[in-house]
Amino acid sequence: MRIKTLTIVGVGLIGGSIGLAAKRRGVAVRVLGVGRQQTSLQRALEVGAIDEGLLDIHDAVSKADVAVFCTPVDRIPEQIAGAGPYCKPGALLTDAGSTKAHIVRCVEAALPDGVYYVGSHPLAGSEKRGCDFADADLFQDRLTVVTQTDQTDVNALERTKSFWNALGSRVRVLDPEDHDEAVALTSHLPHVVAAALAGSLPSELQDFAASGFRDTTRIAAGDPELWTAILAQNRDAVLRQLQVFDIGLARLRSMLEVKNWTALNGLLAQAKKVRDALGS
Amino acid sequence: MRIKTLTIVGVGLIGGSIGLAAKRRGVAVRVLGVGRQQTSLQRALEVGAIDEGLLDIHDAVSKADVAVFCTPVDRIPEQIAGAGPYCKPGALLTDAGSTKAHIVRCVEAALPDGVYYVGSHPLAGSEKRGCDFADADLFQDRLTVVTQTDQTDVNALERTKSFWNALGSRVRVLDPEDHDEAVALTSHLPHVVAAALAGSLPSELQDFAASGFRDTTRIAAGDPELWTAILAQNRDAVLRQLQVFDIGLARLRSMLEVKNWTALNGLLAQAKKVRDALGS
Repeated sequence: MRIKTLTIVGVGLIGGSIGLAAKRRGVAVRVLGVGRQQTSLQRALEVGAIDEGLLDIHDAVSKADVAVFCTPVDRIPEQIAGAGPYCKPGALLTDAGSTKAHIVRCVEAALPDGVYYVGSHPLAGSEKRGCDFADADLFQDRLTVVTQTDQTDVNALERTKSFWNALGSRVRVLDPEDHDEAVALTSHLPHVVAAALAGSLPSELQDFAASGFRDTTRIAAGDPELWTAILAQNRDAVLRQLQVFDIGLARLRSMLEVKNWTALNGLLAQAKKVRDALGS
Repeated sequence: MRIKTLTIVGVGLIGGSIGLAAKRRGVAVRVLGVGRQQTSLQRALEVGAIDEGLLDIHDAVSKADVAVFCTPVDRIPEQIAGAGPYCKPGALLTDAGSTKAHIVRCVEAALPDGVYYVGSHPLAGSEKRGCDFADADLFQDRLTVVTQTDQTDVNALERTKSFWNALGSRVRVLDPEDHDEAVALTSHLPHVVAAALAGSLPSELQDFAASGFRDTTRIAAGDPELWTAILAQNRDAVLRQLQVFDIGLARLRSMLEVKNWTALNGLLAQAKKVRDALGS
């Protein structure tokens, strides 16, 4: 895949990493970056994530063959819908948002003919923010979910798959709702749990938080606004997963209460088996 | 601090790291290791964690000026009590168990006069097991809790503090019950939560478990037998902390239910503040 002009809206950790990977791998001839502040564009230029920085999103999108929106999930729908009328015919728009159903629903209803949108979510990233943490290998061997609905153009879907493949990612095509249900369990629930754990630590016990506590709560350092928007958009699925988690935790608690150490050991062994299968 | 003969009972990750640190830092002239299998002693010799490996715990302890028990918490009390009659007058016994109240209570009632015991818990380690993961710097700048009760000999307490300081660790002296309550929150509760999360992942969603899920569930890869014993010994404190955690999680859930995004954002911001203060 060779893109003449790739526009990245939002040059943070994910946007910056897309720019670095695209340039390193020759996926794009020219990479335009869009930011709200000149300083972040300057930083993206310095680390080599983009070739040119623009403050005007419509200007930048009008030049794009492919545009990727890497902004917070609560800004993506209106940004893509707003950009539609400025796009070249045949332009492909996608995003890197952590939720898909709401975004896909909003965007599909809003784009003009001849401008294509396919939802994406690269399952990569960290609790860190900003282009300073961008990494050309961020997507290497990671999974990117690409969404398909009955409105998805087949050719646009293939281009989107090729795009992420070209950045080093594995790709799976999913219905947006199925994506949201999956990440509610594997990403949004852990975030909620990590935040509840971290929030329960009084300052006088900070000294007792060793690697176990640090690992378990690491994602709670993520940006509160970003995560509030994610949890708001995926509220129903997160609530369902919270309910399942509660049942599992209650089972474990009742084993402690009745001192059923055999059952507890079995449950911990099952959890270890699952975790071991994931690797480090 | 210079120990003529240091005996380490259990040459796994912690025991092996104590041996490496003691030899590297010149804390002990001679390090004896005790294991149940010749193969693990051989491994400890090969990595340089011990000078000599013995299968007979009483023989090894009879030669010790200081002996550290790094075995599972459900074996420590009887091992120390059983070793008591074989110790030299003035010998100092300590342990590295993750719980303290039960162990200290059992051991203090069992030792002969002239043999001293002080409980310890270095807040270091990982989900990994075995001497192959031993690290001479494991205790560097980490916290070790050393316990004091009304039966603790002041001189033995000072020697125990000096021992851990000499291995690179910071030391805090705590009542065994206070220790257990603190680690119930900072270590045992996270383990239970991580296990519940890991256990809830169906195999078909394994591919969706990215770094957030992996971090949050990493400790669930810990040994089930070790952890069942820890949770059994600290059951009451863990149940108390589980109850507090449940209340925090229920608060968070109700914010999702009533769509109070301002409150949710505030809660996530507070959790981030706590987590940021811990560092990476």
